[in-house]
Amino acid sequence: MSFFDKLAGAAKRNASLLCVGLDPDPDIMAERDIFQFNKAIIEATSDLVCAYKPNWAFYEAMGIQGIEALLKTRDYIPSHIPVILDAKRGDIGNTSLFYARAVFDTFGFDAVTVSPFLGRDSLEPFMSYRDKGVFILCRTTNPGAADFQDLNLSHGSEPVRPLYQVIAQKAEEWNSYGNLGLVVGATYPGELKMVREICPNMTFLVPGVGSQGGDLEAALRAGLDRKKAGLVINSSRQVLYASRSEDYPEAARKAAQTLRDNMNSILEKIG
Amino acid sequence: MSFFDKLAGAAKRNASLLCVGLDPDPDIMAERDIFQFNKAIIEATSDLVCAYKPNWAFYEAMGIQGIEALLKTRDYIPSHIPVILDAKRGDIGNTSLFYARAVFDTFGFDAVTVSPFLGRDSLEPFMSYRDKGVFILCRTTNPGAADFQDLNLSHGSEPVRPLYQVIAQKAEEWNSYGNLGLVVGATYPGELKMVREICPNMTFLVPGVGSQGGDLEAALRAGLDRKKAGLVINSSRQVLYASRSEDYPEAARKAAQTLRDNMNSILEKIG
Repeated sequence: MSFFDKLAGAAKRNASLLCVGLDPDPDIMAERDIFQFNKAIIEATSDLVCAYKPNWAFYEAMGIQGIEALLKTRDYIPSHIPVILDAKRGDIGNTSLFYARAVFDTFGFDAVTVSPFLGRDSLEPFMSYRDKGVFILCRTTNPGAADFQDLNLSHGSEPVRPLYQVIAQKAEEWNSYGNLGLVVGATYPGELKMVREICPNMTFLVPGVGSQGGDLEAALRAGLDRKKAGLVINSSRQVLYASRSEDYPEAARKAAQTLRDNMNSILEKIG
Repeated sequence: MSFFDKLAGAAKRNASLLCVGLDPDPDIMAERDIFQFNKAIIEATSDLVCAYKPNWAFYEAMGIQGIEALLKTRDYIPSHIPVILDAKRGDIGNTSLFYARAVFDTFGFDAVTVSPFLGRDSLEPFMSYRDKGVFILCRTTNPGAADFQDLNLSHGSEPVRPLYQVIAQKAEEWNSYGNLGLVVGATYPGELKMVREICPNMTFLVPGVGSQGGDLEAALRAGLDRKKAGLVINSSRQVLYASRSEDYPEAARKAAQTLRDNMNSILEKIG
């Protein structure tokens, strides 16, 4: 089964567009052991999500033990829920081959985030895994995103437009196997809307959504495709650290449920 | 001691601008064990190089064992030779903190390659390690580099110029601690020259140099700074796989020596 089919299956089963980012931060976690923390979060939320998204940085920072905990976490996630490794990989073609092997063959993740900076041949080794998902960074939510992603490009005879839109256009062209997605932040719904116009049928992984109905509604209105789908809304800290005490699993469940239900209410409202 | 001081020390001691890329590829290596392969390469070349540059992808592809072999390799490299982890990291600010911790604190590398795509706040956590080196991808050597890095940008009131030059300009602005470098491929010496004009004193990590004197000379002429320094010339496959049989350490030594000596002859010639 392809990644996007698996994602659709989990989204349907749990009636959810919510992805929980598994980013264990030892400075604020109410638990010593990363795997135990993730296990509790997964048990508390696995009927509420369409995907999980561990970010490689948090595991790598703890060395070999951290990476082992990530692999245990991946194994613990119920097999019907896809796991997106947020690793922002990208290197020249022959090196990207090894990154793709690592993520998909060695570690067995369902999808990965990649950086477009090195161009098409840096992404091809990932895309060639037709049953896996490849989310290309397009417009991120951090302040520095403006440094390069928003700069205006004169691209041949085409109209001047910002880099992130050129990336979206390229992703649309490169998507021969239908296994590409984009990472587009929710901070600026206008940009999400522009990217949706360029890529009408692509799935977007959307970080940066607050719990406020307004933000969420703006993001959904801007980002949904014509079938009122095509979005994976990620929340990490808001769920993981809803409580920083021992009751964190219950608090995480409540936060995830609120997010999911708010999204579903908005979906109904939009019709 | 700062990374760039350590680099200068090793360059002087070995009279070398050569960096050997430690990219063990099991498909072509004349050895089963990665660490044994790297150990033989290091023993054969450690008096000929100014740095080593392992690429994370090759280790990660072999899972936990591969990463363990990388850490053993790092420990085996003589302590006066700096080790640059080629990992092309980059994430939003609070996540990049964890990447920086991983590379510098957890794993103990001297320098790292990073991607500029997410902008300044994605690089700050790395730059804040003032004694470490941070090489920002600027212009890579792969075919796909043209997809985005070469696109022309209209940047406020400044003249239209390609993305890679804007990155060089930003790196120059951001280099408050003097610990930034750039990755600039040698394939197009004209571009190396442009970047050198924008960043007159920065050190460039230069991949993509062939063994031919011509390429090497063009790269050195275009890339050297006013003190006839500021370059780290990387070679991976040409050294590692000079022979694919049991004599690979001797062949690697010969290839490394030829490269180093050719560079030194060109340096003398340039004066």
